[in-house]
Amino acid sequence: VMMGSGVFAKAFTLEHAYAATDTEGKTVKGELERIGYIGSEEPGEHPIGSYFETHIEQGPVLEDHDKTIGVVTGVLGIRWYDCTVTGMEAHAGPTPMALRKDALQVASKLMQEVVACAHRHPPHGRGTVGMVQVHPNSRNVIPGRVKFSIDLRNASDALCDAMDTDIRGVAARLSAESGLPIQIDIVSSYPAQPFHAECVDAVARAAAKLGYSNMPAVSGAGHDAVYMARLAPAGMIFIPCKDGISHNEIEDAKPEHITAGCNVLLHAMLERAGVVA
Amino acid sequence: VMMGSGVFAKAFTLEHAYAATDTEGKTVKGELERIGYIGSEEPGEHPIGSYFETHIEQGPVLEDHDKTIGVVTGVLGIRWYDCTVTGMEAHAGPTPMALRKDALQVASKLMQEVVACAHRHPPHGRGTVGMVQVHPNSRNVIPGRVKFSIDLRNASDALCDAMDTDIRGVAARLSAESGLPIQIDIVSSYPAQPFHAECVDAVARAAAKLGYSNMPAVSGAGHDAVYMARLAPAGMIFIPCKDGISHNEIEDAKPEHITAGCNVLLHAMLERAGVVA
Repeated sequence: VMMGSGVFAKAFTLEHAYAATDTEGKTVKGELERIGYIGSEEPGEHPIGSYFETHIEQGPVLEDHDKTIGVVTGVLGIRWYDCTVTGMEAHAGPTPMALRKDALQVASKLMQEVVACAHRHPPHGRGTVGMVQVHPNSRNVIPGRVKFSIDLRNASDALCDAMDTDIRGVAARLSAESGLPIQIDIVSSYPAQPFHAECVDAVARAAAKLGYSNMPAVSGAGHDAVYMARLAPAGMIFIPCKDGISHNEIEDAKPEHITAGCNVLLHAMLERAGVVA
Repeated sequence: VMMGSGVFAKAFTLEHAYAATDTEGKTVKGELERIGYIGSEEPGEHPIGSYFETHIEQGPVLEDHDKTIGVVTGVLGIRWYDCTVTGMEAHAGPTPMALRKDALQVASKLMQEVVACAHRHPPHGRGTVGMVQVHPNSRNVIPGRVKFSIDLRNASDALCDAMDTDIRGVAARLSAESGLPIQIDIVSSYPAQPFHAECVDAVARAAAKLGYSNMPAVSGAGHDAVYMARLAPAGMIFIPCKDGISHNEIEDAKPEHITAGCNVLLHAMLERAGVVA
């Protein structure tokens, strides 16, 4: 994802992006050559004063607040973990409650705590368990092992660190209480990217000047602006999308919201360029 | 399972048992004919005064209490359910906590309650969630639907009914609190089977007379004695097995415990037959 901006900002190499393949094995480089779109300019050499990006929110907040423009203050940092609770597989019938080592009972407590951890780090803390594997996953067998994903997000790396410490502390306590080992492995980590104060202000001023209802917003998903913010002052403009749905054929944004987003983009850029509109 | 006693007690028909196939498609009838073991007697016609059965416990209780003989008072009733919690699938990044309909958060609360329900119905209540399916089961997607199994057991049908009422009440409360539909479907139900008081006493007296350490026990799994108890006074004798493991190549019972189990079986049968040993 974000391949062009990633190469431009040297988050990864041009060769890395060129070598990426689709499910049929076609490479990015091969396909760019085939359609005549492979460029000759050295990526990253183009000078940039400021960077702005308009995008649908991909979430439900603007729609929920009935606002036209989201003034994006930054992109949340992300920590991805795999968590494994190890118990003892046993028959659900002959094994009394007191003699069980039920991995799912401990895992489901920790799943509750992933959400509680997000609530303990407001207003932008987010905690999600999206993926669960139960072993042996049989109706009359007490689970001997449960593996699940943890996705923690927050607005700064310090807050992501605090959530990391929080959930590891909870896991250690649950492990001590239950006697069952709990392993938490970090899988991926993406730093938080606050946007440049002057760009954020330029977006807010443009929205106000044009008379669009607006509110501060954070982005929970990655965007090109994350990489571009490493090179130049950057900012983003969100507009509402129906039910927060994106990357889907039923993704839907209203024409008047798209117009508003483009107008704010134009006026924020004019301000940063020193042009009076 | 329990095919011979099931036909004998008319829990299902001879034709049903004959027609059962293994994974290679071989029928019970065909294989009995092939090995020369198909009988000519009408199943169920053989008269029975009392029925006794000795078995490894298939659980950890006797080993945990360091007792040689379990005087089995009955077999637990079983209720199997499928439970489905329906939320709204959404991206883990852009969706704030307050706007989520996280099916797994509600499901994992109910998983906790399955175990709590068993503890609310002691001493024999058992509650197990063995099987979980999360949809779409992706690391950065809030689960839109979670389906899981519930296995509830207790010593009488009245107690099984009470656990059924309990868990359905909890599910209704969690559904009302979260706004997420929770569906609970019964999949199978096996009635509890208490054993005949005189048979239970005969087992206890035999163990005491022979000087074996013993304790009352319940069976969480089914046995032939469950079907036979429908025809005649019945009882069971448990002996310990290592770590409660059964139906497994590492199943292990000590020779002295097997001897003790056989001796108790003999003396209980002699007492019921009116023979003084």
